Amino acid sequence: MGDYVQSVELGVSQQKGVNVTQPKVWLKNEFVRVGLAESLCTYVMMVFGLGSVAQVVTGEGAFGQYLSINLGFALGVAMGVHVGGKVSGAHMNAAVSFTMCTYGRLAWKMLPVYVFAQLLGSFLAAGTIYAVYYEAIHDYCGGNLTVTGVKATAGIFATYPAPYLSLLAGFFDQVCGTAMLLLCLMALSDQRNKPAAAGSEPLAVGLLVLLIGISLGSNSGYAINPTRDIAPRVFTAIAGWGADVFRSGNGWWWVPLVAPPIGGVLGAGIYKVFVEMHHQPVSGQGGQLVEELQEENTPLEKQKYISSGNVCV
Amino acid sequence: MGDYVQSVELGVSQQKGVNVTQPKVWLKNEFVRVGLAESLCTYVMMVFGLGSVAQVVTGEGAFGQYLSINLGFALGVAMGVHVGGKVSGAHMNAAVSFTMCTYGRLAWKMLPVYVFAQLLGSFLAAGTIYAVYYEAIHDYCGGNLTVTGVKATAGIFATYPAPYLSLLAGFFDQVCGTAMLLLCLMALSDQRNKPAAAGSEPLAVGLLVLLIGISLGSNSGYAINPTRDIAPRVFTAIAGWGADVFRSGNGWWWVPLVAPPIGGVLGAGIYKVFVEMHHQPVSGQGGQLVEELQEENTPLEKQKYISSGNVCV
Amino acid sequence: MGDYVQSVELGVSQQKGVNVTQPKVWLKNEFVRVGLAESLCTYVMMVFGLGSVAQVVTGEGAFGQYLSINLGFALGVAMGVHVGGKVSGAHMNAAVSFTMCTYGRLAWKMLPVYVFAQLLGSFLAAGTIYAVYYEAIHDYCGGNLTVTGVKATAGIFATYPAPYLSLLAGFFDQVCGTAMLLLCLMALSDQRNKPAAAGSEPLAVGLLVLLIGISLGSNSGYAINPTRDIAPRVFTAIAGWGADVFRSGNGWWWVPLVAPPIGGVLGAGIYKVFVEMHHQPVSGQGGQLVEELQEENTPLEKQKYISSGNVCV
Amino acid sequence: MGDYVQSVELGVSQQKGVNVTQPKVWLKNEFVRVGLAESLCTYVMMVFGLGSVAQVVTGEGAFGQYLSINLGFALGVAMGVHVGGKVSGAHMNAAVSFTMCTYGRLAWKMLPVYVFAQLLGSFLAAGTIYAVYYEAIHDYCGGNLTVTGVKATAGIFATYPAPYLSLLAGFFDQVCGTAMLLLCLMALSDQRNKPAAAGSEPLAVGLLVLLIGISLGSNSGYAINPTRDIAPRVFTAIAGWGADVFRSGNGWWWVPLVAPPIGGVLGAGIYKVFVEMHHQPVSGQGGQLVEELQEENTPLEKQKYISSGNVCV
Repeated sequence: MGDYVQSVELGVSQQKGVNVTQPKVWLKNEFVRVGLAESLCTYVMMVFGLGSVAQVVTGEGAFGQYLSINLGFALGVAMGVHVGGKVSGAHMNAAVSFTMCTYGRLAWKMLPVYVFAQLLGSFLAAGTIYAVYYEAIHDYCGGNLTVTGVKATAGIFATYPAPYLSLLAGFFDQVCGTAMLLLCLMALSDQRNKPAAAGSEPLAVGLLVLLIGISLGSNSGYAINPTRDIAPRVFTAIAGWGADVFRSGNGWWWVPLVAPPIGGVLGAGIYKVFVEMHHQPVSGQGGQLVEELQEENTPLEKQKYISSGNVCV
Repeated sequence: MGDYVQSVELGVSQQKGVNVTQPKVWLKNEFVRVGLAESLCTYVMMVFGLGSVAQVVTGEGAFGQYLSINLGFALGVAMGVHVGGKVSGAHMNAAVSFTMCTYGRLAWKMLPVYVFAQLLGSFLAAGTIYAVYYEAIHDYCGGNLTVTGVKATAGIFATYPAPYLSLLAGFFDQVCGTAMLLLCLMALSDQRNKPAAAGSEPLAVGLLVLLIGISLGSNSGYAINPTRDIAPRVFTAIAGWGADVFRSGNGWWWVPLVAPPIGGVLGAGIYKVFVEMHHQPVSGQGGQLVEELQEENTPLEKQKYISSGNVCV
Repeated sequence: MGDYVQSVELGVSQQKGVNVTQPKVWLKNEFVRVGLAESLCTYVMMVFGLGSVAQVVTGEGAFGQYLSINLGFALGVAMGVHVGGKVSGAHMNAAVSFTMCTYGRLAWKMLPVYVFAQLLGSFLAAGTIYAVYYEAIHDYCGGNLTVTGVKATAGIFATYPAPYLSLLAGFFDQVCGTAMLLLCLMALSDQRNKPAAAGSEPLAVGLLVLLIGISLGSNSGYAINPTRDIAPRVFTAIAGWGADVFRSGNGWWWVPLVAPPIGGVLGAGIYKVFVEMHHQPVSGQGGQLVEELQEENTPLEKQKYISSGNVCV
Repeated sequence: MGDYVQSVELGVSQQKGVNVTQPKVWLKNEFVRVGLAESLCTYVMMVFGLGSVAQVVTGEGAFGQYLSINLGFALGVAMGVHVGGKVSGAHMNAAVSFTMCTYGRLAWKMLPVYVFAQLLGSFLAAGTIYAVYYEAIHDYCGGNLTVTGVKATAGIFATYPAPYLSLLAGFFDQVCGTAMLLLCLMALSDQRNKPAAAGSEPLAVGLLVLLIGISLGSNSGYAINPTRDIAPRVFTAIAGWGADVFRSGNGWWWVPLVAPPIGGVLGAGIYKVFVEMHHQPVSGQGGQLVEELQEENTPLEKQKYISSGNVCV
């Protein structure tokens, strides 16, 4: 026995003497590698998030209330960050990826990879939750899949605005919610201020999402995320809810696509203007100390070419 | 016997210059030592978990609701991880142990020890909770111990499916829930990605169980654990609920036994295929750095022969 | 200016050359010092704990429900651990102090100091909460301070059993709850297993208390603490609730005094027998490594003569 | 001017061999820098806090209950601490700033900067939340903005006492709540006791605020913060609620201004008298060890002149 241990040992020693010869292939692999991780972490986040909504809706309050949806997405995001982790940075949100590109923390050419991976993960999660709660949903609504009304179930998958909300106010709501998300994410990852402690970033990001759900969620369900919203919406259009998922809420569907990237850039910019730009330059030996400290906190990060896009780590 | 154990043991004794003279006895002690710890941590997890259900059911909502059951099992798991800790790895779940064996992180010969210890701890916890809530249960149901109906109390101890749930859908529900559990456990313990911070693993695993309860719990009570479910079920069969605990839910009892191990292997495999397999080889000095960092995070682990089975640490 | 900084600097340098000449006085000071810290942390825990009950009772559910009482005591304990911290170890519970004495982690002669300090802090906290909620309580019950009945308010301060609970079952309930408390505290502080991470002990202990409230609280309000229960009970007897506080629940008052110390010794003993006794001896260099690691985790502890009683740190 | 600041600055520049040539300009920048950060962190805290109240009030319980307001302010404070972080120390509360000045941990001349920044951030947050929830508020109350009555909405922005509460009792309530806040903040930042772990301070402070909301919140809404309360109150007076916001509650508005600073000084003083004053002098090598350990925990802090005011870090 001990094959397992031995094989790993061998693997490590071989790797230590390895020559990386084909950078072209390597790069291609990187795209796939990042895409796979980003897909999986988005999938994990969405299965848990949508699952919590399905449970609340079909359980009619017996298996959780609004708070449990907040917790579902919050902890789902936390687990997603663990899963995507240092490979893709676990954006799970095209507004985050877009903001990172805007401020030079992710290469623009990576944006399509992230968006596609997020759409894929999100779509598959919608399918998984529909499968897991298929009998629950049909038992709840009597097989009548509707977008509005007392027994509406489309809200399990995508967001819809409150009856009182105008498109303009909803747009502002989404800009504002995503701005708060990115503003705080910038603070959580600012190593020269008071960032989330090394290792506690997943939980910190999760608590931030919990907070947004508790504070800025009732107007329109805090999508604050284009890819989280559109993929399940398309899934429901196909799976039986029909074109109403695009007509409902006065054609609400495009708002979570357009507003969050704007809000993200705005919020991150506000943090930069109010705090980050004014960090004092650290010169001489002190500067090296800071460098070393940051390295110590994120020892593996430097070894990944994608690390620049990792807002949450 | 025990090549795996012996080799590690030998390694340790050689390093220290110590003579281990009676390997047979020593080894036997190891089985007992691991079994005792695994029993105790499963007992702790189950006392807290079942206690929270008993409190909700007999208190009719005055002493907590569905969320407090989620918290009871979540924090119960966290405390169990502290108790079993580095001795047994605190699986507390035969599906976890089985998956660890499948992927070479636990020796197959240890599986019976784990399963027996988990069954024992789980059974004793059911007895303890029945004793603690004996008067509460009898006051609640008027002494009539039933599995179904308005005043049913069997659900305090084992899981039962929702009325709408078919066996096939329930099987898929359990596969899916356990897959998500193991997928995330793999991420939480992947030292080359974004694992739970050293020392925060118990809480991280607890939050994962909370999340599964919030998102994937309403169909059938998220057993996702063969040993957690069958031992209390047998206890209730003996203690007065009778054979209905096996008949109820169209013979539901075997689903939490069979589906979770399949789901566990599936979920852990998905993580491996999407993320773990693609970790870049770490070459040269960098590799040594990683080695050292990992050692630093888990300094005591190397001294325990069972550490390979410790998914949560 | 800079006086503040300078004076501290001076203080430190002077201290470094100081001779401790009068050990007798020093020791006396130690008693006072530990007693003051233990009083204050118990006071903090009890103000928050009793306050959360007062808020739920007088607010009739509008300002929290049972869960918020669980959170009030849980986070109250966490804050208490921060306050008492390394000075007294923040037992805040005579059953904890008694168990520590029994297993040689606290000198028996310190027990009276701890118990007196806990009683004092607990009594003062009851007075504080009565003052803060004086108008709320009188508005709620119409000035009629009763121990039982619809508008009973004595339960804000001390614990009372559920109507169905016999004294024998209640005694077992308190033994069991305190046993679980101490069993888990032993695990949380076992540096050779999987203890709470350095610095996270207050939160870990708080979550343990939350868990006990969620799982083992509905029978009799989980006193699991003699000093927490008797001091506020005496306060209510004096403040207007009268001798009913001792008569109610078939003379319940003595149970939270007698059962918890028994349970504490039992629970801690179970952990020792199942886990701690079987930790492998660490010999040679490895042993020194463990020593050093433990020291690293608790660098200040060695400098306190009372550190042996610090179960939570 | 600025002896304190200058001395520290000098110290830093001397160490580095750098010449700071324009101290006047530099200092001016420092005021702005700290003010901007304090504004932004207060803004963040208040947007999340007020947003959670707006959601509960306008959602009539469907989007959270009292507990979600507690969580909104608690996590809002935590995010604010991340944002203000090491730049301003993230007081977000004039009672905290005043107490820090009283005990020499912040220069008095900085107090106006902090108070102004807090007022500004708090006012802008009230405006933001009014904009985000404009349609929700008007839909809820039918456009009739009132301070009292069934559909009152002024409580979204500022605190108002319970009907039973006298001004005297309310004053005591605010003194007591703020005293508990500062008492615990002192413990959380006492490096010679059991402080919040390095990096976990934001969460620890957030949990403390959660606890105060759960335990000492129902009498008058736990303002425990002059700047948090008065700025949104002025906003509502202007925005349409009128002078009733000052008349209501028997002229309650001045109580959250006057009582919290008194309570803060009292609470911090109690911690000093009961615990901090009695810390044993650390002599010889051990003393140096402690020095080094503290430095290790807060490596960047020494490079900031304002660090002395940073109670939470």
